[in-house]
Amino acid sequence: MSLIEDLHWRHAVKAYNPTKKVSEENIDKIVEAARLAPTSSGLQPFKVIVVRDQEIKEKLAQGALNPDCMRDCSHVVIFAAWDRYTAERIDKVYDFTTDERGLPKGRFNSYTDKIKDIYLKQPAELNFAHTARQTYIALGLALAQAAELRIDTTPAEGFSNEVVDKVLELDKYGLKSVSLMYVGYADPEKDWLSTMKKVRVPKEEFVLKF
Amino acid sequence: MSLIEDLHWRHAVKAYNPTKKVSEENIDKIVEAARLAPTSSGLQPFKVIVVRDQEIKEKLAQGALNPDCMRDCSHVVIFAAWDRYTAERIDKVYDFTTDERGLPKGRFNSYTDKIKDIYLKQPAELNFAHTARQTYIALGLALAQAAELRIDTTPAEGFSNEVVDKVLELDKYGLKSVSLMYVGYADPEKDWLSTMKKVRVPKEEFVLKF
Repeated sequence: MSLIEDLHWRHAVKAYNPTKKVSEENIDKIVEAARLAPTSSGLQPFKVIVVRDQEIKEKLAQGALNPDCMRDCSHVVIFAAWDRYTAERIDKVYDFTTDERGLPKGRFNSYTDKIKDIYLKQPAELNFAHTARQTYIALGLALAQAAELRIDTTPAEGFSNEVVDKVLELDKYGLKSVSLMYVGYADPEKDWLSTMKKVRVPKEEFVLKF
Repeated sequence: MSLIEDLHWRHAVKAYNPTKKVSEENIDKIVEAARLAPTSSGLQPFKVIVVRDQEIKEKLAQGALNPDCMRDCSHVVIFAAWDRYTAERIDKVYDFTTDERGLPKGRFNSYTDKIKDIYLKQPAELNFAHTARQTYIALGLALAQAAELRIDTTPAEGFSNEVVDKVLELDKYGLKSVSLMYVGYADPEKDWLSTMKKVRVPKEEFVLKF
């Protein structure tokens, strides 16, 4: 199957069958696609949080626009970005990279000095605006990976960041929630979107060519 | 090939062979993956601009952190988001959707009223912060599509938005540039990253499971 076929296959599922669970092996593949996502300067300024614990899902449901999806899906995959850039965080990534590549520590200093000079002068909100954007690349790839496996998903911004951050104690990790995806198998009787045509902006309107 | 194999295959190419061009058919497939990307409320609040014209690329190169990539790549694909949400833009998307699905116009009014109530009260900057995020989903899928076709790419935020917006006259369309990707075929001798190991945050650090 091709990526385009996978993208045609998927849709944002509106109701899940609570008795059908996704295997941990497949969850790991979905997370792996997110982990392999490219990010600005290769910093990967986010983590992915996978919740299958029903008690935690119930708590998260209190802040969800679609609490039934939160309760009934198999797993919730939450994308949470760094609350800000720090020299330590940047150095940690680049030290690991040089180690892995057998290069001398500091090999990329001229580059990391430049990005530190930009990011560390910015207020935390501006840093977070940037780290949050990166999570969407991973979200897209995770949705595509689930579709390749014919696993249903729903990408969602419709939830209280406050509730999610508090329930998962994200401040402990210096993280803030950005988006999430419900993962599982649809309940075909309640998933009203499944019979509707997928609609996208027509090609000739979507693209400008020069 | 699987998505994960494709993601392992790709890397951010650092130099392109200016004599090797990507077919329009393959460019259209890359754009199609972006067009199929899911977006918040299905609004697709962005366009994709494809530039193969060398004169325009030269002008864009003046605002690029890596002007050689801009000049030497086959095509530049620019992601440009709505500068703000408007009632007209939201209605246009939903009127088209109901048309395509054979539903009565206004079928989703209770939903669109809700999102208008949120977005139209926000300052344009906050709207743009949201529309810009959506483009990253499409960027990720476009990069994955190129990788599936074994076409080289470089995602980039390293350019002057001012120059790009001006050269492409994006204000005419109510758009602002967010990111871009160079598309083409690498120059293996100058692409210094091609021989280096792909490094990502280790799995056990990347994911938290509950």
